[in-house]
Amino acid sequence: MEFAEKRLTNQRLYHGAVIDLDLETVALPNGKTAKREIVRHPGAAAIMALTADQRMIFVEQWREPLQQVTLEVPAGKIDARDVDVEAAAWRELNEEAGYTADKLTLQARFYSSPGFADERMSLYLATDIQPVTKRLALDDDEFLRLHLLTLAQAQEQIEAGVICDAKTLIAVQYWQAMS
Amino acid sequence: MEFAEKRLTNQRLYHGAVIDLDLETVALPNGKTAKREIVRHPGAAAIMALTADQRMIFVEQWREPLQQVTLEVPAGKIDARDVDVEAAAWRELNEEAGYTADKLTLQARFYSSPGFADERMSLYLATDIQPVTKRLALDDDEFLRLHLLTLAQAQEQIEAGVICDAKTLIAVQYWQAMS
Repeated sequence: MEFAEKRLTNQRLYHGAVIDLDLETVALPNGKTAKREIVRHPGAAAIMALTADQRMIFVEQWREPLQQVTLEVPAGKIDARDVDVEAAAWRELNEEAGYTADKLTLQARFYSSPGFADERMSLYLATDIQPVTKRLALDDDEFLRLHLLTLAQAQEQIEAGVICDAKTLIAVQYWQAMS
Repeated sequence: MEFAEKRLTNQRLYHGAVIDLDLETVALPNGKTAKREIVRHPGAAAIMALTADQRMIFVEQWREPLQQVTLEVPAGKIDARDVDVEAAAWRELNEEAGYTADKLTLQARFYSSPGFADERMSLYLATDIQPVTKRLALDDDEFLRLHLLTLAQAQEQIEAGVICDAKTLIAVQYWQAMS
């Protein structure tokens, strides 16, 4: 840990609904100090949800930070209803997609943007998904539409810039590698 | 654009060195309003830097938000010295890695975390890299060490959780697909 920084102070600048923002002062390996702006996030789950005929579920939605509509794999942050991140994955698969599965297999875990945020994404694989009989309600500020795409269609949407986020690109790359 | 949200107000909560934080009020498609917490980021470049003998450069560094040391592809945000994101890629390839190349080819563009941040990553491929003759100085709060890994070694570091961020996972996935 010769590179490790040592946290000297931590100031909470903002406490929000989705994220918090902290400003840390750290001691550097050379003894000097520096400031670190850190977005705290509870972590999130995303799902590669595959039908029996090898199509994957994508969610079309408006992304206000990007000012555009995107296609992404179903995903959501861990919230107070979830005992763990896998519970968040099951919930989002139901809420956003209206599907369930026999099991979820952890495919990958990764940090979205390690320079300034602690958000960790857990990406699960669900095969042979089935429509749920009892669907959970969406959050009341969520508006979305489902698309079932083949791998070739998903790759076209990457080329078109509609699939344009890291977790979904990772999901399609894993899908391609397993096809 | 039936899902589009309409920005009603935007409040700058924090102006920082790396990120800004805004709180928007938006009109939803159903006419109601909602709040959106948005981290503004200038965008960043990352480089898949391959030697002639098919090893890739990875940077070992402390990531304070994660409280761990990671291995990542060389990367950095666009700053005032950069005329564009490709210029940031050339600069980081020199600063962080001490290498240059004949050309950089854009491999992918993606948003790190589209739910709450506008950070866009441009990932470039550099092949047959060569050590620079005139190396730029690192930022004075950067401490890092270089590693040249084979594809198999990189995959081991993913398994070990040392390669653990989205852009580097995407870089290794592209590398695997082209190998």
